[in-house]
Amino acid sequence: MTMAKRDTYTPESLLAVAVGVFNERGYDGTSMEHLSKAAGISKSSIYHHVKGKEELLRLAISRALDGLFAVLDEPGATGGRAVDRLEYVTRRTIEVLIAELPYVTLLLRVRGNTDTERWAMERRREFDHRVAGLLKEAAADGDLRQDVDARLATRLLFGMINSVVEWYRPERRGAATSDEVADAVVHTAFAGLRTYR
Amino acid sequence: MTMAKRDTYTPESLLAVAVGVFNERGYDGTSMEHLSKAAGISKSSIYHHVKGKEELLRLAISRALDGLFAVLDEPGATGGRAVDRLEYVTRRTIEVLIAELPYVTLLLRVRGNTDTERWAMERRREFDHRVAGLLKEAAADGDLRQDVDARLATRLLFGMINSVVEWYRPERRGAATSDEVADAVVHTAFAGLRTYR
Repeated sequence: MTMAKRDTYTPESLLAVAVGVFNERGYDGTSMEHLSKAAGISKSSIYHHVKGKEELLRLAISRALDGLFAVLDEPGATGGRAVDRLEYVTRRTIEVLIAELPYVTLLLRVRGNTDTERWAMERRREFDHRVAGLLKEAAADGDLRQDVDARLATRLLFGMINSVVEWYRPERRGAATSDEVADAVVHTAFAGLRTYR
Repeated sequence: MTMAKRDTYTPESLLAVAVGVFNERGYDGTSMEHLSKAAGISKSSIYHHVKGKEELLRLAISRALDGLFAVLDEPGATGGRAVDRLEYVTRRTIEVLIAELPYVTLLLRVRGNTDTERWAMERRREFDHRVAGLLKEAAADGDLRQDVDARLATRLLFGMINSVVEWYRPERRGAATSDEVADAVVHTAFAGLRTYR
């Protein structure tokens, strides 16, 4: 039993606590009771901020999606050859993923049991679809190798990008910086690991 | 309520049913009751085959691990330059992953709440460690680009490989073959997607 503390939460700080609990227990496995315990305030105090846990999920997922979709409107994503825009979007996606790590982690783990989860999955597919479009355009320009199918290439690119949430731990000593991870992904995906001499 | 059917299961066919349920509900979320319903036989019939769900997990995980570790003893993985062995192991890992899809999926999703799960995670880390060793050797030979850290490269390579269990659906019309997926991963990871002219 924890003593209830005075509710000094802002919407942002309460959201940060909720996202931590969602990622640890899974969204389905999280009750208002769990959230109340983790935040150290009563359930009715939480209801003072939000309608319930689904609203917290929506806010958290929106934060991840806003970050990701904003990348697609940046100049580097809208001007120039498709292959360069694709590299730019890959790099910036990694940067957003690391800057908003718990929020994007939640987005990637969502499974589709509620309306909010299904909406999240649909928006995520929309993002993937936009990137797949860039990849197809780059392939049509002749800037991508022809022996890897565009759909497979998209899957593998996102496989690499999304894996970052599974292993990147910024607090670990000697952890790579956001830039180093972004460079590694871009170099690996576009230029390959192997040197040819 | 399903009618119990006659128990004509072999250890293999019972395991296949159990793995399907584990992957759908999560291992923690699966009870003997769920297994009994999915198999259409009574719990006591299941106990006639195995001691309980943890033994089914151990058998399933062993099947995945045996397949993966066997790759490391194949001639292509033991002779020749490290970079070629690494490519060989990457290709064969994809092939085993697709041939044993539900079993490797289970292995990759295991979280570590029981002794068997912790053992599975340890053996999986051991496999990753062996592949990381090959990658370091290839880097020391000068066969891998120097500007991607070996630990990061290992993470990204496994990010790509392991993502296959999340999206590969062999039953889907027009699904890529095991060979096509293996080629795509090897080409992407080692030679890169981009053409340079």
